[in-house]
Amino acid sequence: RTLRIGLIPGDGIGKEVIPAGRRILEALPASLKLKFDFVDLKAGFEAFEQTGSALPEATVDVLRNECQGALFGAVSSPTHAVKGYSSPIVALRKRLDLYANVRPVKTVMTAKKPIDMVIVRENTEDLYVKQETTRDTPDGKVAEAIKRISEKASFRIAAMAGDIALRRQKIRESTPSIHSKPLVTITHKSNVLSQTDGLFRTASKQALSDPKYASVAIEEQIVDSMVYKLFRQPEDYDVIVAPNLYGDILSDGAAALVGSLGLVPSANVGEGFAIGEPCHGSAPDIQGKNIANPIATLRSAALMLEFLEEPEAAAKIYAAVDANLEEGKLLSPDLGGKATTDEVVEDILRRL
Amino acid sequence: RTLRIGLIPGDGIGKEVIPAGRRILEALPASLKLKFDFVDLKAGFEAFEQTGSALPEATVDVLRNECQGALFGAVSSPTHAVKGYSSPIVALRKRLDLYANVRPVKTVMTAKKPIDMVIVRENTEDLYVKQETTRDTPDGKVAEAIKRISEKASFRIAAMAGDIALRRQKIRESTPSIHSKPLVTITHKSNVLSQTDGLFRTASKQALSDPKYASVAIEEQIVDSMVYKLFRQPEDYDVIVAPNLYGDILSDGAAALVGSLGLVPSANVGEGFAIGEPCHGSAPDIQGKNIANPIATLRSAALMLEFLEEPEAAAKIYAAVDANLEEGKLLSPDLGGKATTDEVVEDILRRL
Ligand SMILES: CC(C)[C@H](C(=O)O)[C@@H](O)C(=O)O
Ligand SMILES: CC(C)[C@H](C(=O)O)[C@@H](O)C(=O)O
Repeated sequence: RTLRIGLIPGDGIGKEVIPAGRRILEALPASLKLKFDFVDLKAGFEAFEQTGSALPEATVDVLRNECQGALFGAVSSPTHAVKGYSSPIVALRKRLDLYANVRPVKTVMTAKKPIDMVIVRENTEDLYVKQETTRDTPDGKVAEAIKRISEKASFRIAAMAGDIALRRQKIRESTPSIHSKPLVTITHKSNVLSQTDGLFRTASKQALSDPKYASVAIEEQIVDSMVYKLFRQPEDYDVIVAPNLYGDILSDGAAALVGSLGLVPSANVGEGFAIGEPCHGSAPDIQGKNIANPIATLRSAALMLEFLEEPEAAAKIYAAVDANLEEGKLLSPDLGGKATTDEVVEDILRRL
Repeated sequence: RTLRIGLIPGDGIGKEVIPAGRRILEALPASLKLKFDFVDLKAGFEAFEQTGSALPEATVDVLRNECQGALFGAVSSPTHAVKGYSSPIVALRKRLDLYANVRPVKTVMTAKKPIDMVIVRENTEDLYVKQETTRDTPDGKVAEAIKRISEKASFRIAAMAGDIALRRQKIRESTPSIHSKPLVTITHKSNVLSQTDGLFRTASKQALSDPKYASVAIEEQIVDSMVYKLFRQPEDYDVIVAPNLYGDILSDGAAALVGSLGLVPSANVGEGFAIGEPCHGSAPDIQGKNIANPIATLRSAALMLEFLEEPEAAAKIYAAVDANLEEGKLLSPDLGGKATTDEVVEDILRRL
């Protein structure tokens, strides 16, 4: 099988880690009978400055018409409003209906306090619909944004969380794990937002009441309390499902638990399509120094393969990364090591 | 000076910790020339079941017309929608225009990794305006909520954060601290919400550009990255200012850093009025067992006094609490101890 994969480095260290992602895919053992065909695509702030668009139409077209998956690096979003600029990854998620953002946060099993959770974030609505207005009043400006929650999107993301919980349980039959049974935790703030988050809550519960999830325990947490528990008892959590914005916040919080954002992958998943994306940003401060941690991208490549129904290839990448981390000799500076990006990549390729 | 203080225990352990708050105020040394006159007031889920209103009008009237401050315990908000029920503390904040929610999170100086920050949360708008609608569509229900951010509220909360930063700096002149200079960190998500959070950002910056804050360093953080940093480098932060919902989430996250929500106080502050409120909930699981940690409430009483211009009385309470924690002999179960609520209170009263 040949997979056509778009490569979208974006800005900053995106340009250093995406080539690493390409290298690991190319280095997968021939016995897997998996080939890749890559296409370079543009997006990001540099693309915006060159072409006037942070997400050129050509990028969307090629992904939609030619590719099965993609690797997306990072983009430098200006914190100040730049006329016409809008985050290309947020736009891509919506335009390709990549309705789930899946973020596994996991230590190696030998860690002092092992954790192993995955945050399943709704990826198309909530405040990310970006419908905002501003009006002048005698008291100054007043701005409003819409938070939109639909039954359909909530149902489908919760079902995805349930499916992931079952799949994780299956993998545990053959590999050691800290969890003995699958758990999905529904996160919301329905004590304040009874209609929007209330709908997320009820639609999630309904999706998870399907008999196929009978073996999955279901729990709920108010988002503020979820953040508290995440830091007090992270080992308790297996799959956490959340609306878009809470998912964004929770996944950065969870990343802090494993020592570096440079370790945490994500996948933006739709029907038959997945974009792997490291959770870190474009990190302009370390750009061009060959010290960015490539692991988040390597794991994102594996995660993409999982959602493209290639679990064996994914498992090989995960195992090679874990072996590098367990040995702990060739680590990038964010993990307290001295290795360059290239040295880390080569160490991991050797272990494939 | 005599202060009239409303006591609103609410539900669950609120009924055990609010009496502790009363006791410490009554036990303050006579040399402070501060007297208290207490009035018991109702609010919460039990009040709702008894009277049909979670926040009886009498409670609002007495607070508004007779009191300078209040202590609020906790309320059991049902996670499912109960017709006619709505959170009384959220309503109180709005009705009394208690526009700031101030949450100091601090370890004792002798902690292994001392932290000392305060989260200043806007308390009247954002998604807490609770303007929600639901409509039926061919694809199922769609619910929307309004997130409202005003220039006025953003400006005034940032100014409050600046004032608090200056006041903290002043206290540091005479007491040891981990910070050498004042810092305010503005938290937002303007890379996605350019109008609403963009307005929070620009109005905050404008407020803090006043020459009186010239000695205060100003920084900004995107909310997801703020949560990440909160856990990686909590010692770096001094004053964090945030819109309502991010402030809610950040303060629970910060509470996790100090070991227990049972330690973390808050104050809801308006012009000349303050309500002290422990950050923890009504904890029905431990209710009636006399094991709730009273410290969050004792510190909330002190915080209320700070905002009622009684810093000396406040300092006495803080010092007595710190002495109890530093000795570490009489601790409640949430801190790994075996002491009852009453034993902790008595130990702290002895140290006043
Ligand atoms: C860059 C930003 C728009 C994005 C988001 O909020 O989704 C990022 O934080 C992420 O998590 O991928
Ligand atoms: C109970 C709830 C409505 C409240 C809030 O969200 O403000 C609580 O979490 C708090 O922080 O005081």
